Amino acid sequence: MKSTATFYHAGCPVCVTAERQLTTALDPARFEVEVVHLGQARHRLAEAERAGVKSVPALVLGGTVLHINHGADVAALR
Amino acid sequence: MKSTATFYHAGCPVCVTAERQLTTALDPARFEVEVVHLGQARHRLAEAERAGVKSVPALVLGGTVLHINHGADVAALR
Repeated sequence: MKSTATFYHAGCPVCVTAERQLTTALDPARFEVEVVHLGQARHRLAEAERAGVKSVPALVLGGTVLHINHGADVAALR
Repeated sequence: MKSTATFYHAGCPVCVTAERQLTTALDPARFEVEVVHLGQARHRLAEAERAGVKSVPALVLGGTVLHINHGADVAALR
């Protein structure tokens, strides 16, 4: 069964390359990647925070939050 | 042909889970993952810095540096 890997971002232009690189590098046989733009999908901010996301871009992978580089604090998106 | 994905770390205990999770999540058909412990392999510090690594853990993927969470600054490992 595939796991879901959720990539949260906020459109941060300097991070787009990094984001694409990472989400496309994951094993497609094992992960279903969902990309969530928290600037547009603001109703998912609470879910991201519950998962432990403090800043974007971040990848939530099997319950572990990986904060990648630093675009913006989630608190600043509210 | 496989690309090399290099994961630099410094043994940071809090990051071990995150590191394992990310390196094993990469597509094995496309990436050869090399894990480098910069605390032990100090002769590779210069190479990591040239690649743009500022802090560990970091993953260098196709020329892009992804700084993941924050364990230690590379400068502090010298």
